[in-house]
Amino acid sequence: MPLQDHMQIISVDDHLIEHPRVFTDRLAAKYLAEGPRIVEDEKGRHIWHFEDKVYPYIGLNAVAGKEPAQYGLEPLRFEDMIPGCYDPVERVKDMDVDGVQAACCFPSFPGFGGRVFLQATNKDLAFACLQAWNDFSTDEWCATAPERYVPLALLPIWDVDRCVAELKRVAAKGARVVSFPDSPVPLGLPSFHSDHWGPLWDAFEETGVVVSLHFGSGSFVPGFSASAKQLSPTYKGGEFQSVSARMGGNAVKDDDAPTVTSFAVYATNLMWTASDLVFSGQLQKHPRLKFMLAEGGIGWFPYIWERMDQVWERHRYYQPIDFDARPSDLFKKHFWGCYIQDEFGIKNRHEIGIDRICVEIDYPHSDSNWPNSRKLIAASLADVPDEEAHRIVELNAREVLNFPRS
Amino acid sequence: MPLQDHMQIISVDDHLIEHPRVFTDRLAAKYLAEGPRIVEDEKGRHIWHFEDKVYPYIGLNAVAGKEPAQYGLEPLRFEDMIPGCYDPVERVKDMDVDGVQAACCFPSFPGFGGRVFLQATNKDLAFACLQAWNDFSTDEWCATAPERYVPLALLPIWDVDRCVAELKRVAAKGARVVSFPDSPVPLGLPSFHSDHWGPLWDAFEETGVVVSLHFGSGSFVPGFSASAKQLSPTYKGGEFQSVSARMGGNAVKDDDAPTVTSFAVYATNLMWTASDLVFSGQLQKHPRLKFMLAEGGIGWFPYIWERMDQVWERHRYYQPIDFDARPSDLFKKHFWGCYIQDEFGIKNRHEIGIDRICVEIDYPHSDSNWPNSRKLIAASLADVPDEEAHRIVELNAREVLNFPRS
Repeated sequence: MPLQDHMQIISVDDHLIEHPRVFTDRLAAKYLAEGPRIVEDEKGRHIWHFEDKVYPYIGLNAVAGKEPAQYGLEPLRFEDMIPGCYDPVERVKDMDVDGVQAACCFPSFPGFGGRVFLQATNKDLAFACLQAWNDFSTDEWCATAPERYVPLALLPIWDVDRCVAELKRVAAKGARVVSFPDSPVPLGLPSFHSDHWGPLWDAFEETGVVVSLHFGSGSFVPGFSASAKQLSPTYKGGEFQSVSARMGGNAVKDDDAPTVTSFAVYATNLMWTASDLVFSGQLQKHPRLKFMLAEGGIGWFPYIWERMDQVWERHRYYQPIDFDARPSDLFKKHFWGCYIQDEFGIKNRHEIGIDRICVEIDYPHSDSNWPNSRKLIAASLADVPDEEAHRIVELNAREVLNFPRS
Repeated sequence: MPLQDHMQIISVDDHLIEHPRVFTDRLAAKYLAEGPRIVEDEKGRHIWHFEDKVYPYIGLNAVAGKEPAQYGLEPLRFEDMIPGCYDPVERVKDMDVDGVQAACCFPSFPGFGGRVFLQATNKDLAFACLQAWNDFSTDEWCATAPERYVPLALLPIWDVDRCVAELKRVAAKGARVVSFPDSPVPLGLPSFHSDHWGPLWDAFEETGVVVSLHFGSGSFVPGFSASAKQLSPTYKGGEFQSVSARMGGNAVKDDDAPTVTSFAVYATNLMWTASDLVFSGQLQKHPRLKFMLAEGGIGWFPYIWERMDQVWERHRYYQPIDFDARPSDLFKKHFWGCYIQDEFGIKNRHEIGIDRICVEIDYPHSDSNWPNSRKLIAASLADVPDEEAHRIVELNAREVLNFPRS
């Protein structure tokens, strides 16, 4: 059946590009010199400066509206992007064109999970920047059109007590989702197996906020040739390196794998994440935790459930894991997934769980189908009964995100 | 339909444990002092010594015949294993009990892909050891029962010319399979994207020998907490470390993830491998190459095909990849998969390709269902038509391995 007009598409994964005043509008005067600011370099490029570092690519992979042949060219100035990337009023117009009702927008400059603030030297400044981003997200971006944006926040992941306090602050302001690293380990933080995060999991349960684990938010790039590298860009001799080559173009000299080899296996990061969380013992202590696996697809869920259950059945006798809780049951209870295109996942939707599948649009990144998202989602659901299609495009997301129709 | 009695099970992935004379029986006298030899340490443990290094665990994960509660205890002496681990005559008896006709046995001490020889200081010695292993495999182990063993060989992966010569030598002796690293990159060798391996791929095409890529043969352990570590064991203060903890027991101090988190995501290594090979451009140059993905399951194939095709469609315009060859087509042409238990894969067997699925037994490792393999394989195929079941358990393996019924 065709996707019915009354069914609204709620995307659980989109991206915004921070405009130049996000931080300067909000930081205390003492922080302005060191805080994030856009500087135009000698070649006319807009570049984020923060403390003594430079961060290339104001809009990494912001290619919405471009032909694939142009994908290799990262935007160098704000004018190189369509305004919907950084202007929430324009974005709503782009969502209208795309047939999308609501979007949950992840950060760009700070890294998907707030890595840039974690790596700052002055942690008080970093915390002020993080709160500025959260205020921008809720009070400026999402407030522009409250029915069209699902408020998302970041946390000061270097300090669990501050995480708890900030989560409560943003939840009170309406945040429905926190973008948290898909693994803290590559960032040098305690793993999901550690009790370190316990107070934060308590606070997520208390607030009902969803923990969204976006591919790449832990800054680990999958793939054999890429495994030892991180997403952090470097700037040498007036040219950006590493990320330029990895994320935007040809192979780099010390890594002859085309970057597409990593793009193809993004989901493996989230398989690792799920394995960590399912075997961590933390889910049993925090039965109301809700995780969204962002940009990971869904077609692999049943395979990995079977595998998790098999290794659990054999090794629970001597390994420090829960003897009684079946991994697939934990996964099905605590995790939601989403897809952009995943025919195999849709075909196996009943096995995956019709109430656990959401859609994502990924505007303005190259995985996005904008401005044809609704058309392609409708095509992917052509053989799916109306009731199930409605759950997938709208109802599951509204329920898990606590974002009801007004 | 029940699995018919006339259908023989051909396992494409089993393991043998080298007995103490594998090398000493074959090496020239000048190499005996430095070559691999079993030494009993002060605690009565049998330990491989090679050059100036020690290699713990004569039979890593050799748990066949043990209850899961005993899995954490690696065998310390040959008497701690059942004889089928290291005795080919006894192994045949164990295969009879298990309902298995033929097995393709991977090495243990040298590492699945020959890592130990690669890492040796004296490469002439290493090459002699490698040839000794290959001669042991073909002339001793497999010759014991030619209808029951599919000869497998290793290659001197540090020298591509020697690889070519050794491949031709072992192919002439009957080798049907080479165990090659699932990625050369973690071993410090050129990646699959490099033309470095071209002469070897030519030789594989010429000989018809299958390249089997076994999980872990590149010595990379998947999982966020484990990603930076290698399989190579260390021996400090009279105790084995790292691998002991990683592969056989509780969490290690610098890594609080239970090892089961890595076991659950073994297949992600082979997803990376497949992405490398599919996007390498080498398959188009070597149209007769045949790869077996060992110990990776099959249920994830359609998901990763869709994903590969999606990223190819978007990024082929500017990345150094083949514009015309669809990745899923390359995968379907060049790769075979196998499973131990994979209900989801069997359910989706037509999508995966009924002529591309084999079975593996994995004796004597913990993934194995010995002595119930045939019973469980039959159960997994209970709803599968006879003709398809026959392809999966026997005919596909016989064809790809060129191992006909005699």
